[in-house]
Amino acid sequence: MYSIESLQELVNNAITKNVISIKLKPSGLYKPIQYIMNSGGKRLRPVLVLMGCDLFGGDVNQVIMPAIGFEMFHNFTLLHDDIMDNAPIRRNKPTVHVKWNTNTAILSGDAMSIWAYKFIAQAPESSLKPILDLFSNTAIKICEGQQYDMEFEVKDKVSVADYLEMIELKTSVLIAACLKAGAIIAGASATDTDLIDKFGLNIGLAFQLQDDWLDVYGNTADFGKTIGGDIVANKKTFLLVSALQMADNKDKKELQKWVQMEKPNPEEKIKAITDIYNRLAIDKLLQNKKNEYLSAAVLALDKISVDIGCKHILRTLAEKLMVRTI
Amino acid sequence: MYSIESLQELVNNAITKNVISIKLKPSGLYKPIQYIMNSGGKRLRPVLVLMGCDLFGGDVNQVIMPAIGFEMFHNFTLLHDDIMDNAPIRRNKPTVHVKWNTNTAILSGDAMSIWAYKFIAQAPESSLKPILDLFSNTAIKICEGQQYDMEFEVKDKVSVADYLEMIELKTSVLIAACLKAGAIIAGASATDTDLIDKFGLNIGLAFQLQDDWLDVYGNTADFGKTIGGDIVANKKTFLLVSALQMADNKDKKELQKWVQMEKPNPEEKIKAITDIYNRLAIDKLLQNKKNEYLSAAVLALDKISVDIGCKHILRTLAEKLMVRTI
Repeated sequence: MYSIESLQELVNNAITKNVISIKLKPSGLYKPIQYIMNSGGKRLRPVLVLMGCDLFGGDVNQVIMPAIGFEMFHNFTLLHDDIMDNAPIRRNKPTVHVKWNTNTAILSGDAMSIWAYKFIAQAPESSLKPILDLFSNTAIKICEGQQYDMEFEVKDKVSVADYLEMIELKTSVLIAACLKAGAIIAGASATDTDLIDKFGLNIGLAFQLQDDWLDVYGNTADFGKTIGGDIVANKKTFLLVSALQMADNKDKKELQKWVQMEKPNPEEKIKAITDIYNRLAIDKLLQNKKNEYLSAAVLALDKISVDIGCKHILRTLAEKLMVRTI
Repeated sequence: MYSIESLQELVNNAITKNVISIKLKPSGLYKPIQYIMNSGGKRLRPVLVLMGCDLFGGDVNQVIMPAIGFEMFHNFTLLHDDIMDNAPIRRNKPTVHVKWNTNTAILSGDAMSIWAYKFIAQAPESSLKPILDLFSNTAIKICEGQQYDMEFEVKDKVSVADYLEMIELKTSVLIAACLKAGAIIAGASATDTDLIDKFGLNIGLAFQLQDDWLDVYGNTADFGKTIGGDIVANKKTFLLVSALQMADNKDKKELQKWVQMEKPNPEEKIKAITDIYNRLAIDKLLQNKKNEYLSAAVLALDKISVDIGCKHILRTLAEKLMVRTI
């Protein structure tokens, strides 16, 4: 039986061996890749690949290389997203386009997406085609999600349904695909791979909603980010799009006033918008929606045709994700 | 027997059907992809995949989807290179980052590289693994070539050997890989796939040298670009790196004076540098080197174990590439 920590260690060792510690030329291309791959992160995605495999009795060593492929791809999207968002810091370190420059960040990112495929291609040959298709279909959805995210930032009206579709594409499909890839390689049935996909998709959605909630209602120590950051940045979170959709005319005007205000006092803005969220009970709406997703996830997990004891690690992971201790 | 034109038509029809005319959402992501894929170009790379397949008696319909994958990848590199080079025009049309914006160009490019893999994955399943490995290894080399190219632009000393390695990575390996992919899918022997790879690599190198030569010694009508563009832009071509390597102190100083001059008169600069090239007989040096590559290419082609008549189309293509009528 593996623990989450032992799987994380397995992944970290494999990434050190196959990515971080090898010498590659030109170093101008590969150093930024090794830098971001060595910048920590919880290795959630590769751990999920291993868990999906182990759940169905597969050998985790058979999926470690594709697992690195998923982590490489995830970090590639972070690298390019940081250029697009003009983000200076990632995991407490300067982003690649700041430490080097934008051209380097574009090209090293491009190389990462290809390198991800090189790891994916090391899946056992009998599963290569389905894993490759799953990976490409997921990767393209993540691009679509990022496009919607960028469009939403400059769009006046974003519905809650649009928002949920966007986070599904941008975040949840990858969580689901990692579990599913592990399951496929372990030889799980089509029914079971669909169920674990469903589990992952719903956990991913719940996780993203929790992320939105923590920005306003969490505390900095647990969350690792400044409280109210999304509010200050006018980020279209579940809270904001729901509030804009549900507010009466007066509250809507108040919300729009704060959103459009140039250089507002951050603390006043956070307080004013949080007050509106509270008045409209948006936090409860979010928690209800999140719990719907969690229930759907647990229901799918329950139906998977393996011994209940084997599912324990996935339940634990889901719980840890919700309180952000992983 | 196919003609080059009939293969181009086959490719164009397949690209229209599978890329340009389909409706995909979000259009903000896919329109730029369809725009660049519909902007012409000679479809050299997919045509080479078809030729490599046909040469060994394979069915070109079996390789049309991977062929589109190679074209998609090539256009992806052009799209991202144009951001890095700040290029406003490509094939007489505004570049994607100018017509849309840089973020769109980054993200649509990322989606193109994934989409390329989706086409590559449609290779016949028996050849999937070797084609996938060939594609990824080639793609990563192209990134390495682009990195060297960017580094050379700001580097004082670039040797002729460094330059040749860079153009091999940036241009030739893809030409070679296209032919090789077609040959592998058609079931050619390892010896023959290596020979066609060698043919492609050498043709690619000869083609790039000819490109450098035409910038100075061609005429605008044939070349489709302004003569002396590389000289004005201080581009490190075979001509410039060879001249800097071979020049005596006086000529080297003269060259460096022009390279470092702020806002020189373009015509004077072109004339002065061309005079040095002529004095050092750099054009002959280039033609000799190019002919070496052409001979190596023809030698490899001769050794391929198929009927000489089948090789005619590849010889014709090589000739057309040299005089730029394709």
